[in-house]
Amino acid sequence: MPRIAEAREAAAPSSPSQKARHRRILRAAAKLAAEKGLDHVQMHEVAKDAGVAIGTLYRYFPSKTYLFTAVMAEQVDNLDASTPPLRPGQTPEDAVYDVLVTASRQLLHRPTLAQALLQSQNSAHAAHVPDAGRIDRTFRELLLRALGATHPTAQDVTAVWLLIHCWYGLLTSALNGRTSLPDAEADLRVACRLLLAGRGAARADAELPVTGKASAPADLAG
Amino acid sequence: MPRIAEAREAAAPSSPSQKARHRRILRAAAKLAAEKGLDHVQMHEVAKDAGVAIGTLYRYFPSKTYLFTAVMAEQVDNLDASTPPLRPGQTPEDAVYDVLVTASRQLLHRPTLAQALLQSQNSAHAAHVPDAGRIDRTFRELLLRALGATHPTAQDVTAVWLLIHCWYGLLTSALNGRTSLPDAEADLRVACRLLLAGRGAARADAELPVTGKASAPADLAG
Repeated sequence: MPRIAEAREAAAPSSPSQKARHRRILRAAAKLAAEKGLDHVQMHEVAKDAGVAIGTLYRYFPSKTYLFTAVMAEQVDNLDASTPPLRPGQTPEDAVYDVLVTASRQLLHRPTLAQALLQSQNSAHAAHVPDAGRIDRTFRELLLRALGATHPTAQDVTAVWLLIHCWYGLLTSALNGRTSLPDAEADLRVACRLLLAGRGAARADAELPVTGKASAPADLAG
Repeated sequence: MPRIAEAREAAAPSSPSQKARHRRILRAAAKLAAEKGLDHVQMHEVAKDAGVAIGTLYRYFPSKTYLFTAVMAEQVDNLDASTPPLRPGQTPEDAVYDVLVTASRQLLHRPTLAQALLQSQNSAHAAHVPDAGRIDRTFRELLLRALGATHPTAQDVTAVWLLIHCWYGLLTSALNGRTSLPDAEADLRVACRLLLAGRGAARADAELPVTGKASAPADLAG
């Protein structure tokens, strides 16, 4: 991945035809990565497949990391749109587990694409790839909603952040044959239970804006 | 990274001179990755720097993923050698936190190398890169020892496995400017506390061999 390109400023699509082109690019990138893996996708192929000039592609996505982080961001946006708030009778742990396990299964339909998305996601620097920070925020917010945390405490915010790391790690291990899928799902259930266990007691402690992870206090003793 | 090369069988060093050559290769690889990042390291440079023929390098390390997973395995072996068992008066959570935070700080001395190691580690498939499975096992065992779990329960094994994923994720986020280092360390402390909290109650439940992760029961309700 060309590092130098990551420092360039990306253009944002505004008109309907620009937005349609943007979507075509993301679709072409996902299709090619699903077929051949991140390392073998060439930017000029993505441009050709999407029917755009190579200059247009680079104007929106200055690097491959940029491009695939945008594909990941779109998937997280879709997950966000399909995540309901906590239903009556459902425990917060079960609700969050359901969201994460559904997301894993969807991603694992196209394992080569999933690997590409996680790989880009892991190498996207917040300063160069704005979508990286957006993915983190959206993911945290949708899990807090699933959890029923309308006024999330600092501990809620930390717990979902840790859960996201467990999820990425378990998914990566399953993709790499380092754990079986049933084991990964069983481990994910334990993660939900343990990380969300102390919630009740800490409910009234603090109220933090959902997007305020960076301003969370250094010690979150419940 | 050339995928096709990953299927080849790697040679193991046996004589003292082979072992010395092996170590020289790992050292050269680490030095080059610290200087220029994984994507820009060329196998022929590693061979030149280590003073070995390119054929020798490929005989030991059939791919770049293979090579850098071996560098990571060596680091985890060093961590293993320097991890003491639980000391009297120390809580298991603090002991495990200390091991992980020391490991992060050591790795973050050379952030470009740390990024390279995590990147290789994330893309190493267990079937093609035997060191990947060895890293997972050694890491779990050293944390269980730090924790004082001489007869680890299924829940202990799962908890340290989840902690390892949290640690990788927090470290990756810090390297990518997506979280600050103090926030990552505060989050790691919360992870240790929450994931190891239920230990006392579950002590007598079950005894599992330390390396028996794959055979852990599907439900680990404490």
